[in-house]
Amino acid sequence: MSARRRSIDTVFVANRGEIALRVVRACKEMGIRSVVGYSVPDADTAAVRAADTAVRIGPADGRRSYLYPPALIEAALRSGAQAVHPGYGFLAEDPEFAEICAQNGLIFVGPEPAVMAMLGDKVLARRMMSEIGVPVLPGTAEPVAGDRAVLDEAARIGLPLIIKAAAGGGGRGMQVVTDRDALLPGYRTARVSAREYFGDDRVYLERYWEQVRHVEVQVLADGHGTVLHLGERDCSVQRRHQKLIEETPGPGLPPSVAERLAEYAVRGARAAGYTGAGTFEFLVAGDEIAFIEANCRIQVEHPVTEVATGVDLVREQLLVAAGERLSFGQADVRPRGTAIECRVNAEDPERGFVPSGGRLDEFAPPGGPFVRVDTHGYPGATVTPDYDSLLAKVIVWGPDRDQALNRMERALGEFRIAGAGVRTTIPLLLDVLRDPRFRAGACTTSYLDGRDVVGASPN
Amino acid sequence: MSARRRSIDTVFVANRGEIALRVVRACKEMGIRSVVGYSVPDADTAAVRAADTAVRIGPADGRRSYLYPPALIEAALRSGAQAVHPGYGFLAEDPEFAEICAQNGLIFVGPEPAVMAMLGDKVLARRMMSEIGVPVLPGTAEPVAGDRAVLDEAARIGLPLIIKAAAGGGGRGMQVVTDRDALLPGYRTARVSAREYFGDDRVYLERYWEQVRHVEVQVLADGHGTVLHLGERDCSVQRRHQKLIEETPGPGLPPSVAERLAEYAVRGARAAGYTGAGTFEFLVAGDEIAFIEANCRIQVEHPVTEVATGVDLVREQLLVAAGERLSFGQADVRPRGTAIECRVNAEDPERGFVPSGGRLDEFAPPGGPFVRVDTHGYPGATVTPDYDSLLAKVIVWGPDRDQALNRMERALGEFRIAGAGVRTTIPLLLDVLRDPRFRAGACTTSYLDGRDVVGASPN
Repeated sequence: MSARRRSIDTVFVANRGEIALRVVRACKEMGIRSVVGYSVPDADTAAVRAADTAVRIGPADGRRSYLYPPALIEAALRSGAQAVHPGYGFLAEDPEFAEICAQNGLIFVGPEPAVMAMLGDKVLARRMMSEIGVPVLPGTAEPVAGDRAVLDEAARIGLPLIIKAAAGGGGRGMQVVTDRDALLPGYRTARVSAREYFGDDRVYLERYWEQVRHVEVQVLADGHGTVLHLGERDCSVQRRHQKLIEETPGPGLPPSVAERLAEYAVRGARAAGYTGAGTFEFLVAGDEIAFIEANCRIQVEHPVTEVATGVDLVREQLLVAAGERLSFGQADVRPRGTAIECRVNAEDPERGFVPSGGRLDEFAPPGGPFVRVDTHGYPGATVTPDYDSLLAKVIVWGPDRDQALNRMERALGEFRIAGAGVRTTIPLLLDVLRDPRFRAGACTTSYLDGRDVVGASPN
Repeated sequence: MSARRRSIDTVFVANRGEIALRVVRACKEMGIRSVVGYSVPDADTAAVRAADTAVRIGPADGRRSYLYPPALIEAALRSGAQAVHPGYGFLAEDPEFAEICAQNGLIFVGPEPAVMAMLGDKVLARRMMSEIGVPVLPGTAEPVAGDRAVLDEAARIGLPLIIKAAAGGGGRGMQVVTDRDALLPGYRTARVSAREYFGDDRVYLERYWEQVRHVEVQVLADGHGTVLHLGERDCSVQRRHQKLIEETPGPGLPPSVAERLAEYAVRGARAAGYTGAGTFEFLVAGDEIAFIEANCRIQVEHPVTEVATGVDLVREQLLVAAGERLSFGQADVRPRGTAIECRVNAEDPERGFVPSGGRLDEFAPPGGPFVRVDTHGYPGATVTPDYDSLLAKVIVWGPDRDQALNRMERALGEFRIAGAGVRTTIPLLLDVLRDPRFRAGACTTSYLDGRDVVGASPN
């Protein structure tokens, strides 16, 4: 993002679901016109209803709609937008799309394409962080190719290890290898997954820490040299590398570790020339820290930070995109209490968490004190299994973790969702909330491994 | 409330609507069982659905249900409750009811009956405040009776003046007299209204300030000598003495005035021996202050204070009722940003604000960042015109007043309420939010006088 001030009176939202609605809401509050691009099955979604204008961009198939730059650019230009907000997922971290936006005179709401390209390449990102003194996991400095190289590098790094897509993110297609015999099959599976998910089959190896926490730091940077952090989020409760519950502050995280994480994130953002809202993700075991990746976008779990700090991150993204200076400094960021988010997915916990879909005959989100719900659901809406299964995010706040957790239990218990075929992860979430291990703040990323049936004892 | 610790595991909620649901939610979060008493038309309300147990207490007619102590006490005792939460309205400020609760071994969640009786008598309350050095409006120190006395006192106090019920509250039946000829007719009307609303026809006279703000201070006191304030709320936007919009901090309120208000409220609560959550109401004109009344209950607008301070007032009420000490001190109360509440009433703005009722075919409250909704509405619920017309409270927060107001406009615009016969005050609220006078923070209590048609210019 250059520091030049550019007026934005119309934003094109190149996304769907709750994050599209989130962007529309921010625009409305800022007096900015919002235009939502939608695919055929999304014609009557909440974001489309809430936007000032909505434009059809293509069919259900994302490759011809939300993932198809020509359709998005044409719709954005036709709508008179000066900026494109990519949300998360789809093209949000695609430097080529950001570049195409720029070539068409559109502001891409996110960091510069070159910054995104560098941080988006996990190998480059880890090398950069390592060079500025931030600890990274032992692993391959470059993508690794060929059986011989894989075996050699694995011997050097040690087991267990994890094979990740160099172009990847969001936990997709990662392979954990605990056994030497599983190495080459895992390598092949990872390459196939990487090609399928990201169109790029390069993979790299990384030491796999067991019993680690996933802790990430929210950063915010303008084009005028200000780089801030807004505290951390612990996202250790995951199912198949997908986050389910996120909270701030990290439970039991020693203040000295939290400070180091924040300092590393700011150092990384500054070194990368980052602008806008971004996240630096780390693994934490005791007081050991290792950088894993940076996310060049707003994240699903951003409300946790908003609720604790009072900062509207999407608003700040838009202000930074318009070339404004951040209106506050690090000393003004004073997080309060505990904030927790639970992701309510339209999935069937009793059938291996397959995405569930159907009409929401009943849909009444919880309310009351210190409860926020971000959702594109509404009574009568149709949940389509075509895309991401996220249906709602329930975010609560409390002066301490106990009160926040009690509030979350109350809120999830209050959520009424019904419709033929629609199942959600609420039973699983309530199970976790009531688990003494989670209540004690003792969960690591392996907490839910193998726990694919509600009520099954976690291993 | 005595300082003795008494365990509360079950609370009987002697109220209905959103405040009953609010109390149920607080109970759930505290691990307390909740029992809601309901009248026949309220059998399928949100509070009844959310409560652990619900007990029918009588017919629609409040005098035989929500206002009938024998039915309430019997239901409370039968349900095994140790405490009764009266909400607001109905018997919330009735010292006799509090006394009956005590006689039956039930903790009344509120101040001691004698405190309530004294503060509930507007004449006694003003005298007490005056004696401890808090300014009050010129007025009669005692209820005034007889034409001669009314004429004499009016001559002493000066015009305009207001005639109020000694036993009253909530703005009901008050008569403003601007003209000497209207004095005796106004006196007679006020007495009739007072008898009708409060069963007590004693009235008193008070100087009527025009162009004043209504500013109140939230206090919280335990039975161990701690008395705190939680900042002020400006409630100047009223229609026929009913509050419509409340906010904190008071817009344009000089810090020195805010400090004096808070100090007066704490002084008053301390002098009265107040315990629990309460409100001291003042008129403010420039830097002139006059105490008008104290409210011995949780108020409709309490969420404004909760959102700004992070304190759950209903939880604190219950803790104080159980004899606990407040877990924080004045220095821990650090309000943040601006919080605003709009009351969405089921009334028809185009038909003189008559209560409207019917089935809520569509009911989708707003959500997203920094928006809280307290409502007993849900899709399919029936709005009954039998009681208070309050349907929902929309509370928003922003780092400053402008952002909070923009957010409120967004939130109200997003609220979907539809059903045959159901009309709401949302159009009026949006009108006010967009009015430059309101945006400038310049509204006094007379702002909406005579503005009974939406879109009519305010006088």
